[in-house]
Amino acid sequence: MITAQIFAIGDELLDGVIADCNGKNISLWLRDQGISVQEITLCRDSDDTLKELLLKASLKHDLIITTGGLGPTKDDRTKYVLGQLIQKPLKENTHAIAIAKKHYDRIQRVWTKETNDYHLIPEGVTPLENPLGLAPGLCTLFNDCLILSAPGVPRELNSMLEQGFPEKLDEHLSSSRKKRKSIIVRTHSIHEEEIFFKKGPTLWEQLEKFGKVSSLPTSTGVDIHIKVDKDNFESHEKAIKELINSTFLKDHVWQFGDTSLPSFLIETCRKYGLTLSCAESCTGGLTSSLLTDASGCSDVYMGSAVTYSNDSKKKVLSVKEQTIKSFGAVSAQVALEMSLGALNVFDTDVAISFSGIAGPTGGSREKPVGTVAISVAHKQKQQSKVFNFHGKRVALKERFAMKGMMELLLFIESIYR
Amino acid sequence: MITAQIFAIGDELLDGVIADCNGKNISLWLRDQGISVQEITLCRDSDDTLKELLLKASLKHDLIITTGGLGPTKDDRTKYVLGQLIQKPLKENTHAIAIAKKHYDRIQRVWTKETNDYHLIPEGVTPLENPLGLAPGLCTLFNDCLILSAPGVPRELNSMLEQGFPEKLDEHLSSSRKKRKSIIVRTHSIHEEEIFFKKGPTLWEQLEKFGKVSSLPTSTGVDIHIKVDKDNFESHEKAIKELINSTFLKDHVWQFGDTSLPSFLIETCRKYGLTLSCAESCTGGLTSSLLTDASGCSDVYMGSAVTYSNDSKKKVLSVKEQTIKSFGAVSAQVALEMSLGALNVFDTDVAISFSGIAGPTGGSREKPVGTVAISVAHKQKQQSKVFNFHGKRVALKERFAMKGMMELLLFIESIYR
Repeated sequence: MITAQIFAIGDELLDGVIADCNGKNISLWLRDQGISVQEITLCRDSDDTLKELLLKASLKHDLIITTGGLGPTKDDRTKYVLGQLIQKPLKENTHAIAIAKKHYDRIQRVWTKETNDYHLIPEGVTPLENPLGLAPGLCTLFNDCLILSAPGVPRELNSMLEQGFPEKLDEHLSSSRKKRKSIIVRTHSIHEEEIFFKKGPTLWEQLEKFGKVSSLPTSTGVDIHIKVDKDNFESHEKAIKELINSTFLKDHVWQFGDTSLPSFLIETCRKYGLTLSCAESCTGGLTSSLLTDASGCSDVYMGSAVTYSNDSKKKVLSVKEQTIKSFGAVSAQVALEMSLGALNVFDTDVAISFSGIAGPTGGSREKPVGTVAISVAHKQKQQSKVFNFHGKRVALKERFAMKGMMELLLFIESIYR
Repeated sequence: MITAQIFAIGDELLDGVIADCNGKNISLWLRDQGISVQEITLCRDSDDTLKELLLKASLKHDLIITTGGLGPTKDDRTKYVLGQLIQKPLKENTHAIAIAKKHYDRIQRVWTKETNDYHLIPEGVTPLENPLGLAPGLCTLFNDCLILSAPGVPRELNSMLEQGFPEKLDEHLSSSRKKRKSIIVRTHSIHEEEIFFKKGPTLWEQLEKFGKVSSLPTSTGVDIHIKVDKDNFESHEKAIKELINSTFLKDHVWQFGDTSLPSFLIETCRKYGLTLSCAESCTGGLTSSLLTDASGCSDVYMGSAVTYSNDSKKKVLSVKEQTIKSFGAVSAQVALEMSLGALNVFDTDVAISFSGIAGPTGGSREKPVGTVAISVAHKQKQQSKVFNFHGKRVALKERFAMKGMMELLLFIESIYR
């Protein structure tokens, strides 16, 4: 098995300024390449620490990928540390100069040696093009370990995963990689304990016959991952589906696969020829934003009304003054009128609406923070329910949005399947 | 200096299934506690690896925080590894039983020893309450190092950072922590190189007199962080402001501080007594969702129309058929009518609108993927411009949204300041 370690370099990652999302993208990419990531390490802009960590990793793994520390300022240390590691001085590199000029040409600026030090590279290190940025990437060989370095800006890193890094993997790492792939059983409305202890005490062992099993509670429910050899994927997937469909878990599976809930909802609408709209209050547009993350959603998703104020609920969605007065803005009744309003305004087949309290203020004893009314509507049939969740504002918005999309998915399946 | 290492445990973090966001929250929390995080390590559910990593970290640092691996399934290894580390067997723990019963009571379920193994804890390890979840946290002392363990579910971890972990820090770590705080100079519309090489070649050194400097390109522009001793924060902040305001950088600073752009925009609107609405097409509700992440935004933010289809642009925002026909949906003209539509529908003082191509499909030679028309409107004055960005769909949505909010912020400041 070819193994890898990923480094994300930068004080900002350890001072709580930003979270690293590059590690996830690189891991996913390497998984598809048949390479197993053993560790992701976030570390400071410190020469000594970084050198020691890279040295140790190079002795354990076939591949190291670093992100960050390639920019022009003094806290960017990666190439200096690579030079120390391979004990080579930094020198002018004609290839690096050509790359720098090309990058700056692209954004209609002129690069010279005074602009920055992008032309200086440790001897023996190869500069790589950066299709969406300015700082070049680097390719280093050390201790029989391939070290690929990209900037920390996510879109730059991602572009190098498509162009630059794949060529270097093929050049330097054995092609006999054993590719693995996960079969994912995504469930809703059932706890881990109910699945693996109460109702299916032998399920884990049964699944383990196919590959390594892991269980992951997510915002939609419990996802069960079974990692299998890629060659067996189809036969194992079929067998696992049959196994699951012969158990209690059958009624809790919403998907065999790894499509996100918003994308799966868009696909399901498309399958049944349905158009979709939303009416959002407490979720503030999050549901709409998640739905429109799905590329090509415009044949299904028509639009949303984010009606934060009561006035806009009345004006845009025709929610009745009297309904708000009688039941409060956070009520099944108002949510129902909102979803019907969305059906009408956007002229869609189905709609989903949210009215709730994301907090931290605005809660009461009767309707505490975390209360949300969610309505799903179809021209012939509607439902509206009130749910309660725990958590903080931003997390609650996500839980509300995910719950609503799951409600709509199950609602559509109940009508059309 | 008290130092710490954070571990995020779980195969899902290394197979590209999910990104770790706990590390950022813990780092931020520890920074405020005067503790410096030296490394964040994401590792697999493997007893041997985890034991080795924890052992090494315990020899280097005063504090270890682990997240993940505390659930009830077989891939949850944390407490078993802690037992191996301190060489103590797992035993029934009456305190753990009391905690489990309390947690299950809260969600109206009954915990018994058959439910799971939450009652088994390594001897000498203290169970901790988990205010928003079921699996108890753990507190372990080993090699003079305090090890605090929380589940990986972010809201559960976050609740333990508020309750449970602080008490253990105070109990076991010296109170003479030297607290540091960052002064952040947030700039827009200027490159790192222009700041530190072309226009301000001595600026880095001047800032370094106050504390450690780092430079971070973000989606709003370059942020400059200066980490100072907390005791000097106010005097240093004043001096840094004076320094910056005496240089070319003055016109590029939009904030001294670490408020997010959406929250800062809400605050700015509030300062000038302005209400705000949006009209979104390609951004699909993301701008609205980011604005409503700010707690208490409801006095400023009234609502948004997410008009993905042309029909909804006409129906909800009164965009003219002829304007779409003449200039296309992605045009300064349509964006302008959208922002005026939002002003009118939501009856607000200012509005912002977006119409663009987030891709990957829908681009043309004239209007490639990444093109966005952004209009900002006030009753007396409007502007509408077309911008071009590079990147993929989800990243482009974010860049569009951030650019639009920055445009509106500068627009408001140009009118009211």
